[in-house]
Amino acid sequence: MLKTLVAAAALGAAPLSAVSALAADAPPGAPGGDPWRGLKMGIASYSFRQLPLDACVKGIQRVQLHWVSIKDAHLKMNTSTEERKAVAQKFRDAGITPISCGVVYMKKNDEATVRNAFEYARDIGVKTIVAGPEPDALQLVEKLVKEFDIKIAIHNHGPTDKFYPKPVDVMNAVKDLDPRIGLCIDVGHTARIGADPVNDIHQFKDRLYDLHFKDVTGLTKQSKEIEVGRGVLDIPGMLKALLEINYQGHVGLEHENNPKDPLPGVAESIGYAKGVMRMLPVSVG
Amino acid sequence: MLKTLVAAAALGAAPLSAVSALAADAPPGAPGGDPWRGLKMGIASYSFRQLPLDACVKGIQRVQLHWVSIKDAHLKMNTSTEERKAVAQKFRDAGITPISCGVVYMKKNDEATVRNAFEYARDIGVKTIVAGPEPDALQLVEKLVKEFDIKIAIHNHGPTDKFYPKPVDVMNAVKDLDPRIGLCIDVGHTARIGADPVNDIHQFKDRLYDLHFKDVTGLTKQSKEIEVGRGVLDIPGMLKALLEINYQGHVGLEHENNPKDPLPGVAESIGYAKGVMRMLPVSVG
Repeated sequence: MLKTLVAAAALGAAPLSAVSALAADAPPGAPGGDPWRGLKMGIASYSFRQLPLDACVKGIQRVQLHWVSIKDAHLKMNTSTEERKAVAQKFRDAGITPISCGVVYMKKNDEATVRNAFEYARDIGVKTIVAGPEPDALQLVEKLVKEFDIKIAIHNHGPTDKFYPKPVDVMNAVKDLDPRIGLCIDVGHTARIGADPVNDIHQFKDRLYDLHFKDVTGLTKQSKEIEVGRGVLDIPGMLKALLEINYQGHVGLEHENNPKDPLPGVAESIGYAKGVMRMLPVSVG
Repeated sequence: MLKTLVAAAALGAAPLSAVSALAADAPPGAPGGDPWRGLKMGIASYSFRQLPLDACVKGIQRVQLHWVSIKDAHLKMNTSTEERKAVAQKFRDAGITPISCGVVYMKKNDEATVRNAFEYARDIGVKTIVAGPEPDALQLVEKLVKEFDIKIAIHNHGPTDKFYPKPVDVMNAVKDLDPRIGLCIDVGHTARIGADPVNDIHQFKDRLYDLHFKDVTGLTKQSKEIEVGRGVLDIPGMLKALLEINYQGHVGLEHENNPKDPLPGVAESIGYAKGVMRMLPVSVG
């Protein structure tokens, strides 16, 4: 019954009274329900990298999101446990839960640096590090994954990434390692090198631990990140895929453009994604 | 064939290559096409009423809209023809076309004031005044509509409006007057008094000359305007209705909240509406 109502509402056929129900148990996607239908939509704090922590916190609050992936711009790697706990608490006090950190780049044979990244994640209370480990560091990373029980989501960086341009390159590198080492699909970089984010979300769902959500101006190396909805990516297809795989990781908007004044672009992007979510059939996911 | 592709894309079923076509003749709603599918989506400059003209212009540019309804906050009524032309030109130079002005309130038997409003509209080059004329002024308004050939879109202001709370109240007052006297449905005020904006868009389409687009927190007098998508209104239904009636007037986002810093809310609202538009079936409109 509820599903029928909402499906009708999505087509604008239901009377106002039917679609404006504010019940706490409103169906997903309908007014009053969770607009993200269980997806952990949040912000990669890289989006606010040229602004101080306070502005980042306020910006995420302004768009009513409750998850953040912390970039070192807002908490340097060489911080104490106390400093890390304080920054994480500042987000939590604002209703925002740190869910991952990164991108953290990791070199070979530098256990002190790599171990510090795991301690950093432990200190801020996240279970996933979005990372760019050089292939030679993967054995060390695996050892620390086992020691800390913290996942590694290796970020594919597109045409300029000599190790992991596409999601499949990450998967080829990690498939025989501890399953807690997986993937952060950056949908923009993925498309810029000619791979299909919708396909890869499905294909690599079992090792998908974080996701950088964005749009891009085109499908080439020269293409740039742009407000979600202005570019060429299949935003509905990606969100639908995330619902279909019952994705439990972070969907982190990473808005790269306008770093000195990112909030309008962040807000437009989140609004667009929310509008698309509103229209995805309830049967999805 | 194109319709089939886009319908599939809206469900995320099409491969990336099919939905990322950047051709100039891309189907409506698809990347590269007009996201508004012919609707004249713009901004009621009241949204930026506490900011100067420059900030208003930049804000509208930032969300890639090209239509504005000018409120007196950005161009006082008691200005010269030259001042009016200069402000209109400032918008045009930024790629934004003034399409209406208002809300302009009009009293009885004050021909100088009402005539000034028509001259103001003529000077800025718009063919529609969004207005709140007292009923006793309607004969005078009709006389000037005939003289200037400029439309009057009477704005319904909900529970606190003693003359025109609902769109139907406007229609009852103007139905025997020159047909160029019609309606600006304020969808928020309409819903706050228990009328249905989707119904009224259809019912009064022949006299619908402007529209204030927004969302509201609820359906009562106490309900407040809020970012589009956060409230209870049937946003998909309203946009679908506007496409169905082939509406040629202004769809002016009027964001009332956060008047000192409206741009993030404007951007989120426009993003949401654009996301919904992306998902409306191509067969609509």
